[in-house]
Amino acid sequence: MFSVTILGNNSAVPAHGRHPTAQVLQTPDHLFLIDCGEGTQMQMNAYKIRRSKINHIFISHLHGDHYYGLIGLLTSFGLNHRTNDLFIYSPKVLKEIIELQLHVANANLPFKIHFYNLEKEEIIFEDNKISVECFKVNHRISCWGFLFREKKNLRKIDTGKIKKYNIPASFYENLHEGKDFIAGDTIIKNELLTTSVSPAKSYAYSADTAFHEPIVEKIKGVDLLYHESTYLDALEKKAVNRFHSTSKQAATIAKKAGVKKLLLGHFSSMYETLDEFKTEASEIFENSDIAEEGACYFV
Amino acid sequence: MFSVTILGNNSAVPAHGRHPTAQVLQTPDHLFLIDCGEGTQMQMNAYKIRRSKINHIFISHLHGDHYYGLIGLLTSFGLNHRTNDLFIYSPKVLKEIIELQLHVANANLPFKIHFYNLEKEEIIFEDNKISVECFKVNHRISCWGFLFREKKNLRKIDTGKIKKYNIPASFYENLHEGKDFIAGDTIIKNELLTTSVSPAKSYAYSADTAFHEPIVEKIKGVDLLYHESTYLDALEKKAVNRFHSTSKQAATIAKKAGVKKLLLGHFSSMYETLDEFKTEASEIFENSDIAEEGACYFV
Repeated sequence: MFSVTILGNNSAVPAHGRHPTAQVLQTPDHLFLIDCGEGTQMQMNAYKIRRSKINHIFISHLHGDHYYGLIGLLTSFGLNHRTNDLFIYSPKVLKEIIELQLHVANANLPFKIHFYNLEKEEIIFEDNKISVECFKVNHRISCWGFLFREKKNLRKIDTGKIKKYNIPASFYENLHEGKDFIAGDTIIKNELLTTSVSPAKSYAYSADTAFHEPIVEKIKGVDLLYHESTYLDALEKKAVNRFHSTSKQAATIAKKAGVKKLLLGHFSSMYETLDEFKTEASEIFENSDIAEEGACYFV
Repeated sequence: MFSVTILGNNSAVPAHGRHPTAQVLQTPDHLFLIDCGEGTQMQMNAYKIRRSKINHIFISHLHGDHYYGLIGLLTSFGLNHRTNDLFIYSPKVLKEIIELQLHVANANLPFKIHFYNLEKEEIIFEDNKISVECFKVNHRISCWGFLFREKKNLRKIDTGKIKKYNIPASFYENLHEGKDFIAGDTIIKNELLTTSVSPAKSYAYSADTAFHEPIVEKIKGVDLLYHESTYLDALEKKAVNRFHSTSKQAATIAKKAGVKKLLLGHFSSMYETLDEFKTEASEIFENSDIAEEGACYFV
């Protein structure tokens, strides 16, 4: 199971108690940080995020409301004696910014940072359970979405049944993959020999983007889509000019991609309340919700 | 009259709801920002600081807890269409850091920033009512304190009395300065011709520093001294090693300098509560107080 905790749901200028973009994706094995606006480390304190568990940080683009909190987090990691390697995925130049700031502070971090430049659509992290892929979105500067996808969960072998039906070990891999056991005329249905596990989950983070149909193919059928929704429908023209999206545009992407649920975020400071975003999006895609700071959304 | 509003009173790692260093000094004509740790712009929202009135920002040194919030504040100034020139006083390299971050964001600020490098002890800002002087403190990297001093307030001429005693205009300047009127045998006491105005105020900000006696001469007799007090007395050795001060060391500086009041700040995250700082400092210098976030201290 995945869960996403929202640390910041506002766009560029913090207002109405809302913070710039940051969220934490919890998977069975990882705590991934996605974007890191100013104040992220304080929000982690407020919402009790176990920051020492974060080993991978994904920065969508180098507008400040998505990374100004990173240097403070790294400095605090250092002051808290972190030693684990840290992997940061971002457009290039971030490394230069971070290293310049550490240099003037005469600071040597007690852990190693591996910077990975986002340059093309590809899988940027993978282990035996999950993959993370970056995909291009359409913003004023180079900007990337991230798709977190659990690998297909293998069925679990029922050892009692294996014994009973005398299944050879050479067939176990087929059983894991859901195949029936066949030996001559004998067919034993997979369901008799294995038990199911929870289905593989997926989460897509669309970053900052204008309405951009190519995203649809990338995120098809994900369980949860976070899509920016800086403006309400009435300001569609402003959204276009600024390479942002409206509530209805976000919902249209969700609908076309057939996702299970849509989470809206990155709200403009001009909106003091957010209910209208949900109302507008729901007209197009029913299972739409507001990304509330501090709330945890299960996938 | 001056007033100091504390936006952050914690040292490097934000904790217990406390923020890194930032404070705003209000004088009759200016709103000066002194240091600008991460989250300063959010704290300005929380405490209703009229940020558009800030034209001068003083950064004591380039440890992150004193300036990581600056780039976010500048970006927000830009997004809020600021056009007034902004003056930033800091150790060099800050300009390079800021400009690199603006460059990667493809951001052109709609206002001009004048960067002023702190390199020697001197008056760095002055108008007809106030001067700001920087002075060296003793920290791990180049670090500066700031002394804000109102110019001697001139006495106000009572125009009715001037007429009555037929004082020539050529003598007005002497009257402003408090001199009696003398013409032959006639002496008219200044108090008969002028009224007093409030005495000139002064505020010293000692930045991050180890116990450093040369500060005493710089800040002699100021109305309010803010002095860092990262540790309690029991950790004096740690304070020495890290170029920080204890509560008692801060109080000793205040006492030697004969200041009117001492404000303690920059508390280590290891302390959940702060009362003990005041207790310890008061043993040496009675008029000691804790710099509480959100509180406004009048000078």
